Parts: sequence; structure tokens; C-alpha cells
Amino acid sequence: MRFSKLFTKTLKNAPADEVAKNAQLLIRAGYIYKVMAGVYAYTPLGLRVLENIKAVVREEMNAVGGQELIMSSLQPKEVWEGTGRWDDEVVDVWFKSELKDGTEVGFGWSHEEAILEMLKQYITSYKDLPISVYQFQTKLRNELRAKSGIMRGREFVMKDLYSLHATQEDMDEYYDQVIEAYKRCYDRFGLGDSTFVTFASGGAFTKFSHEFQTICDAGEDVLYANADHSVAVNEEVLDDAAQELGVDKAELTPVKSAEVGNIFKFGTEKSEKMDITFTDSEGKQKYVYLASYGFGVTRLMGVVVEKLADEKGIVWPENIAPARVHLVSLGANEEAEKLYTELQSKGVDVLFDDRDIRAGEKFADADLIGIPHRVVVSTKTVEQQKVEYKARTSGTSEMITQAELFELLHVEA
Amino acid sequence: MRFSKLFTKTLKNAPADEVAKNAQLLIRAGYIYKVMAGVYAYTPLGLRVLENIKAVVREEMNAVGGQELIMSSLQPKEVWEGTGRWDDEVVDVWFKSELKDGTEVGFGWSHEEAILEMLKQYITSYKDLPISVYQFQTKLRNELRAKSGIMRGREFVMKDLYSLHATQEDMDEYYDQVIEAYKRCYDRFGLGDSTFVTFASGGAFTKFSHEFQTICDAGEDVLYANADHSVAVNEEVLDDAAQELGVDKAELTPVKSAEVGNIFKFGTEKSEKMDITFTDSEGKQKYVYLASYGFGVTRLMGVVVEKLADEKGIVWPENIAPARVHLVSLGANEEAEKLYTELQSKGVDVLFDDRDIRAGEKFADADLIGIPHRVVVSTKTVEQQKVEYKARTSGTSEMITQAELFELLHVEA
Repeated sequence: MRFSKLFTKTLKNAPADEVAKNAQLLIRAGYIYKVMAGVYAYTPLGLRVLENIKAVVREEMNAVGGQELIMSSLQPKEVWEGTGRWDDEVVDVWFKSELKDGTEVGFGWSHEEAILEMLKQYITSYKDLPISVYQFQTKLRNELRAKSGIMRGREFVMKDLYSLHATQEDMDEYYDQVIEAYKRCYDRFGLGDSTFVTFASGGAFTKFSHEFQTICDAGEDVLYANADHSVAVNEEVLDDAAQELGVDKAELTPVKSAEVGNIFKFGTEKSEKMDITFTDSEGKQKYVYLASYGFGVTRLMGVVVEKLADEKGIVWPENIAPARVHLVSLGANEEAEKLYTELQSKGVDVLFDDRDIRAGEKFADADLIGIPHRVVVSTKTVEQQKVEYKARTSGTSEMITQAELFELLHVEA
Repeated sequence: MRFSKLFTKTLKNAPADEVAKNAQLLIRAGYIYKVMAGVYAYTPLGLRVLENIKAVVREEMNAVGGQELIMSSLQPKEVWEGTGRWDDEVVDVWFKSELKDGTEVGFGWSHEEAILEMLKQYITSYKDLPISVYQFQTKLRNELRAKSGIMRGREFVMKDLYSLHATQEDMDEYYDQVIEAYKRCYDRFGLGDSTFVTFASGGAFTKFSHEFQTICDAGEDVLYANADHSVAVNEEVLDDAAQELGVDKAELTPVKSAEVGNIFKFGTEKSEKMDITFTDSEGKQKYVYLASYGFGVTRLMGVVVEKLADEKGIVWPENIAPARVHLVSLGANEEAEKLYTELQSKGVDVLFDDRDIRAGEKFADADLIGIPHRVVVSTKTVEQQKVEYKARTSGTSEMITQAELFELLHVEA
């Protein structure tokens, strides 16, 4: 990726109406573009980050047997009326419109009902279960306010997985497997140490659902946790959960946090309403058990920015950065080109700043954009047969050989 | 991919209201699910086909310097009012809704205005041009009728590329490059011989646009072509185009066809309306030239089914099939498992029919699903130290050695 070929430019200022730090930085660095409040486009740099996040999540969902599919955004009214979730009084984030003949349609803000309606035709026997399916879907939610940048948008990308089971035991066991898969995701995103499985409000089937909450000043939630974070409870269910867990509320300290995942056991609640049954091994008709597992892909990107950015700009964890190396040429284009080609041939993604501008601007942009490894090739480094290396998280640079660079990047020389 | 793990089952019948052959076959084979008229979900098998199509198109768009991004579905009214395309009288496929405060919003049926609005802030000088960007976007169009299955949906996936230029010459030259890239796509989808660059209706800037039309009985268009197909004209502009090209209309024969691509030179029409200018090398303010290039991803999938299917089911071209090999075990599970593992380790995607059902059902499903290479492992083939091979397009099977199978699949033994 050559900087000179990107249409985006780093900007001194974000739009005046953009109050969220994540969106301000992402706009200034050229990752996103604000279409309207709560609605963003993702530029080539931004799309790379999203795709990197999706690749990790996809790997972990496949590892627990999830099968990827893609549902529709357009939703028929009938399906949601069956569970009482069409009404705007019940679900206040619907976007709705009409077909030419006046038929009302909704735009998917969630897909539990849609998934069940589809799977209904494939499930007859206990032998058809369990089923685990997921999608990366663009969700549309008519949020009253949208002031948290890409952390809470009116249009955003979510991974939603749904698992269907013949028994509660099977659902419970799978649910625990997915919790572990989620933990692996947050570890890989560099948020493992600050993300906690948190008790949150439940529904008709379970008293509590579970959220994954990342400690973060920009978060919209308040998490109550004990000293070693082995107990974490969302403020909204503090009294109930403390009682249930037998924990003294006074031992739990509040801290601001951002929800980065939410998993939920619907049990047979929805399948009863939608009449989704199967025949068990004894020939009896039973209702299907359902659990659903949400993961905000765009939100995760926003939380990472909020949490890891410093005063100079964004700091990406290596696994989701748009490139691993930010290569800067300072008057040594030929040698920089050579290194650019060589790194790429070794499978290292590089953003190559080949622009004809001042060194100071290039360095400021590198800090703002936040790629983990900055490598400078200049007349000075060429003279010494070295390159200048700086980690984004480090304040100082050092002269190293190309061999040392390759070792640092874990690629063969 | 194990057949026993897929939640989909092949169906004897498609929904009664489904009249399009492509959707009937795709539903019966388990590639898509009908949510409502013109709206389909894509199951794990169907998503694989879509992703394969996208991979080919992505490669060809990158080869002409296109940069992938993703715009939003939600569209603000103001941007489209500027070009006169917000009005339902002008554009009759808008889905529209409202924010909580009553602000009208639309859902993206096209993205020319959205792209220009975004790029405006990055373009100041001729040095910022050309720009070529594309996305794979879920488009929403409120079609009056939706009876062509996935060939014309209310929700569908489109690749749309937009190129912006400083001069008409540069636009014209790039436009011709994209035509060649499109041709390579259709070649790779097995439609090269039956897909033609066709004169179609233009707009304010050009008299004609170009469509890529694939000869297909299920198509909604009529194409007039000469004997060697070097001239192809959409019926809607027959008189004008024949005159322009100096061709005798009597020499052109009508044939039914399906539009699989549409490319269009807007020239400066939109940038004038939206006031998008740049400074040329002489310091003069000029309007940006725009061309746009659509490619229907889901539609292409439908056209391939319509065109290549036979009486037994779907016939996928190798490049977009959900797997290359359909492996059938007939009472020789251990040996079939071994081959399954070996093929996968060689990078060959396999659908492995490991179900405990009759041979006849397995063969009928293999024909319906349409994977190019069918391989049977049975007690008989094991005895002979061979496998039974049948190409989907062939009526007869033959006994071949595993080494011959690998050769046929172009993989190392």
C-alpha cells in the first residue's frame, strides 16, 4: 500500500459535530468518513482493520463449529409479530419502510427471529440438532442519540452467532464453549486483561445474560467488580446479581466500561412463541433451545482506539492494524522501494510513505495512523547499512540492521 | 465440509410462490432461503459461492488499481437532493424511513452521490486524481415486482466501482481498462463466450452507457446482435445505436439476455451539480469527471444457475463452485475419510457426503448441488484400489486411480 495512492489524507481536524475521541481520531487518520450522526463509511485503511477483526472472530467461531451464512436486512413484519417484537413500543430501534403495495417491512436490528424462521424448515428431529450459525451483518438501529462515534452507531457491523439445541444441558455446555472463544478473541485484540465476563440483565428464560465489558473511560456502562475481577456485574443488575452470587456489594468497585459482546440464553422462550419443535429420541415433540451471541465488530474497533490511543494518535494492536510496518522514505526512495518489495514478498503488509513531503509531517502521520512498527530509510541509514526502527508504543528509535528488522518481525531473512 | 454437519437439506420442492428457475434450484439445493419476495438469505453453501465470485471480481478490480472500501446503507436526504435524485418521482426504488426526530433518511440503492460527497473533502488538486474505489455493497431497491429470484432482488449484493478523473481522456482510457477487467471476470465465470458489451441508454453526459449482457432465456432484456456478436445493442436504444454505429438494423437479430454489468460515464454531470472541483496544473478550477461501474454479484450467481443448469440440477463453473470435489462414501467410510483429509490437506475444497442414506439419494443430491467433480469411494472401488469419478457435466462415470484423480484436479500426488 503506497501512501501516495491512498485517496485519504490525514486531517488536522475532525468535523466540529464529532464529539467521540474514537471517531475524531479515525476520521483525522483517514480510516472512516462521517456520513451522518452514527453512520460512517470505512475507507481502504478502515476496511482493512474491520476485515482483520472479522478474520480473528471468524476463526474462533469456526473453531466452535459455527457455520457462516448471511441473512437479509429486510425483515417481514409477520415473523416479528409472532414474538411481540415488531411493535415500536417494545423495540424502539426499528427502521421501517413500505413496499409499493403498502406492505410494511423492517430493517434488521437483530436476527433471532429471522434465524429461527429459516431454520424451522430444516429441523424435524433431534438428529438435526445442535446447529450453530453466524453472520457478519450490517445492523440498522434507529438510535435516539448517536454520539459515541463507531462505538454506538445507527449502522454498524456485528457478528451474531445463534446456537440451537435439543436440551438445556447441551445449550449450557455450548454457551460455555463460546465464552472461551470470546475470551480468545479479546486476548488476540490486546484487550484480554481488561475485558470481563459480566452479569447483565436477562429475559424470560434466564435471570441474567452475560456481557463482555472492557474497562474504558469512554464506555457507556458502569461495571462493579471485585479486586481480582473474578466477579463483575453490570450496574443495572447490581442488587440482584450480588444477592445471587452471594457477594457483598460493598466489595465491588465501580468502573466505566464498554460492552464489546453480549451473549444470551433465550432457552425455549422464542421457539414456544414461534412454535419451533423437534421430535426427541423417544418420539416426543419438544421446543428447541436457543442462545444468541453478539459481538460488535465496528464497536470493537472504536473501543481499541479509545483505550490504546495516546496523545499522538491511534495505537493498533498488531493483529488488527491495517499494516504491520509503516515504512518511511526520507530521500532514499530507491532503497526504500527495495525494502518495500522485499517485505511484501515475505508476506508483511506495509504502508509505504513514498510522498514528497517533510519528515516531520511523515512522522506525525505515522503516529496518528498507529501502525505498530515504523521503519525509516534515509540517506543516513543507507550510509550505515541500517534502518531506523521505532515501535509505535515506544518513545525512542534505534538503528538496526535489516536482518534484525526481519527477526523482530518474525520473518525469514 | 461434511454434509452431515450442514443444517440445510435438499428439498423436493421450492416454495409455491417461487417462479424463477434460479431461485427454485438454489432453494432446493440449500444455497439460499427465501425471506420474502425479492429477499433471500445465503446459507453456508450459498455464501461460499458469493465469496468465490467476490474474490474473482476483487482480484480484477485491484488489478486496475481499484481500492476497496465500504460505504453506508443509510443515506442523508440533502446529498441526493443536490442532484435531483431524492424525489420518488425521479428514482422510484428508494426505501425511506425516518430518524426519531423526523429527519428523513434513505437506504442506498446506488452510491454515486455518496462517493462524490465523501471524496470531495480529499480532492483539491489535479495531483489528487485519478481515484478508483469500489465496494461490495448490499443494495436495497424497492422494486415493484420481484419475480426473477436472485436475478432482480429488493436486497442484493453489488460491486460498484467509481473512478474520478481530471480529464475526459483519462476517464475514457480508464473506462476501456475496466471493460477489459470485466471481460476477464466473465471469462473466469465461464460466461465469456455468451457475454457481450452492449450499447444501452445513456444520460446527460453520454448518449449511451454500456451493459454486459449474457445471452440467457431467463433474461429480462432483449439484445440485438450481428452474426459474430461484434455489435450488440439493447432493444431500448436500437434505432439510435444502429444509426450511431452505421449498422443496418436488419442485420441484427434479437435474443433474450440478462444484464450482468452496467458501466456508465457521468462525465462532469454530477460534479457540476454537487460542485466538486479541483485545480488543474495551470491553476484553473475544473469539474471532476466521474464514471461508475456496476457488477451484480448475486445476480451473476443467478444467471450462472439459469444458464448452465440441466434437468438434474445446478452446474457450477469450477471457479465459483462451493467446493471442487463432491465426495460420496458408499459403505467405505474409513477410506473416504482418508481421501477427504488428503484432498483438504492439498488445498482442495471438498463437500463430503458422509450421511447414512441410500446411494440414489446421494447421487441425486450431488447432481442437484452441482459441484464439478464427483468422486465415489465404495467397497467396490476400494477392492480395485480406485475411485469412481464423474464430472458434473458428463453422463458417465469411470474408475480411476487416486493418482489420476490428483492429476485431474491439478494437485501434487
